[in-house]
Amino acid sequence: MNISITKSETSRAHSVDIENTPMGIHFTDHMFVCDYADGQWVNPRIEPLALIPIHPAAMALHYGQAIFEGMKATQSADGTPLLFRPEENAARLNFSARRMGMPEVPTDLFMEGLKAFVRTEKEWIPKKEGSALYIRPFMYADEPFIGMRASTHYKFIIIGSPAGPFFSKPIRLYAETKFIRAAIGGTGEAKAAGNYAAAILPTELAKKQGFDQVLWLDPVHFEYVQEVGTMNIFFKIGGKFITPDLNGAILNGITRLSVIALLRDMGYEVQERPLSMQEVVEAFRNGTLEEAFGAGTAVSIAPVEAIQFRDQLITFPKEAPVGNEVKAKLDAIKTQKKEDTFGWIVPVR
Amino acid sequence: MNISITKSETSRAHSVDIENTPMGIHFTDHMFVCDYADGQWVNPRIEPLALIPIHPAAMALHYGQAIFEGMKATQSADGTPLLFRPEENAARLNFSARRMGMPEVPTDLFMEGLKAFVRTEKEWIPKKEGSALYIRPFMYADEPFIGMRASTHYKFIIIGSPAGPFFSKPIRLYAETKFIRAAIGGTGEAKAAGNYAAAILPTELAKKQGFDQVLWLDPVHFEYVQEVGTMNIFFKIGGKFITPDLNGAILNGITRLSVIALLRDMGYEVQERPLSMQEVVEAFRNGTLEEAFGAGTAVSIAPVEAIQFRDQLITFPKEAPVGNEVKAKLDAIKTQKKEDTFGWIVPVR
Repeated sequence: MNISITKSETSRAHSVDIENTPMGIHFTDHMFVCDYADGQWVNPRIEPLALIPIHPAAMALHYGQAIFEGMKATQSADGTPLLFRPEENAARLNFSARRMGMPEVPTDLFMEGLKAFVRTEKEWIPKKEGSALYIRPFMYADEPFIGMRASTHYKFIIIGSPAGPFFSKPIRLYAETKFIRAAIGGTGEAKAAGNYAAAILPTELAKKQGFDQVLWLDPVHFEYVQEVGTMNIFFKIGGKFITPDLNGAILNGITRLSVIALLRDMGYEVQERPLSMQEVVEAFRNGTLEEAFGAGTAVSIAPVEAIQFRDQLITFPKEAPVGNEVKAKLDAIKTQKKEDTFGWIVPVR
Repeated sequence: MNISITKSETSRAHSVDIENTPMGIHFTDHMFVCDYADGQWVNPRIEPLALIPIHPAAMALHYGQAIFEGMKATQSADGTPLLFRPEENAARLNFSARRMGMPEVPTDLFMEGLKAFVRTEKEWIPKKEGSALYIRPFMYADEPFIGMRASTHYKFIIIGSPAGPFFSKPIRLYAETKFIRAAIGGTGEAKAAGNYAAAILPTELAKKQGFDQVLWLDPVHFEYVQEVGTMNIFFKIGGKFITPDLNGAILNGITRLSVIALLRDMGYEVQERPLSMQEVVEAFRNGTLEEAFGAGTAVSIAPVEAIQFRDQLITFPKEAPVGNEVKAKLDAIKTQKKEDTFGWIVPVR
């Protein structure tokens, strides 16, 4: 694959405290761009990050064909950039693309574009454990057309933003019983822009009430747990871990998959199945509710301190000790301080 | 309000057959643009239609804060541009904005921007009854940021596209029993980009099976009628009209409101209530199912010829005679050939 590379004249990397900056504010010097037209992906290229001219009728702005991925690049002790399970991101992007009526990105195009981007932006990867270069591959419809059908033109782009360590402050959750994030038959399993849009108002309302995130429940009974904020969720009840099964309305998180594997490797039983709030409340009342944590790429592991569900405040006695252990293992694997027995790390040379 | 106007050097209006072109392909010479920053709408302006520079991290492309409106401008015999219930669009845009955590557009900003746009693009308004200038007000988040919260920057834009008459060919519907458009608690009542994105794949699949549009059913039982394609739907059963009530998952269509008023004015009973497919199937079997039609801004009225619901093909004996009468009345009001007793028309002078 021939990826043309146009370098920016100067780098802004040294003007940013990449080890400590909050994620999402600063962007690296370049972007990977590839265009889709006439049924083909064409002109893959690295070019300086810049504003992109978009037609005001570009379909993504009206009919919402827009999907994304999130992943992190770290580096090994010898400075080699490391990616974490990037082919899972490629596969999920294409799952999302199929649900949204968008073209798939061939895995080799995704991987070669990603690696070229990471090589170009190597100096933007933080060294500190827990910090990383957050990478955002995304695709959107850019045909100028008013009308309801799949677009014929798309852009697939990869940008990056340095991300200092998240404070794993325990989070307080508001179990939402009015608004929903997703329903079976909808787009909840796709990483589609519209899912996030639906969550913004409820999240802002929960924050105003003093909570950090929304705990999403099923849209029919507001009883079965879906996920939390932009993370999947794990509960430890009576020594076993439970996380909601992928029923079509829950995002297939790559951190979720990795946490399940790590917990099983640590000897825990992990059940993927429907989990009702009634079960959580009962476990809280009879003292078998041991811990809960969110799991996602941006935050890694976020221990849960409390959940407000209707008029019941469910609190957790400890700060997710197993969750913190999983986080430490993940961070160590991502910097090659712990052996990668799962084959998750892809070095970029 | 001071709207600055920068005219394009030449007009493309005479290079387009505006009376007959399909909607959504050609765009007028100008656009109205207004920016939102620091809690305020600033710099309202008419400028030549052009590509807009957008940051690749613009939040609309990732988190889907994007809403729109659709409306049509026609003209009277003396050439005065006419708008149809534009304040309803302003109100609905703001309903959508509130649900999506986006700022509202003050009604006077919406109306003054709209009128300035229509005055500027007057020569783009078709004269033929049934043709119109389709007008697309929309708002999207354009702050460059990676993270899940409401954007702090937005653009509110109005563009236009001449639209020849739609052929009111009766449509064949596929009642969807796997995919959903919206669920109560979600964003179905907002005119949000993500709702349309969710509908694209199911619509393409229905088209491959020989249908024109999807008939959306409720997400729990796949039994209660929601809407059709991008239209609301009306059924005539035993002499009465029934259209689904606005339950939070159904778009509050302005054509829907107008059709209800016209039907009642014509002496029909119109019920807004839950309508089950079982009731439709029974009416079909006992011969009381008289007609059905979709109602929306783009198409006006689209008679329904058949509905495939599971293994049952429901067919309609006539081509929606009342629907066609309603369409003729709407078209006549929109060109002032019929007196506007409802006060729906807003002339733009």
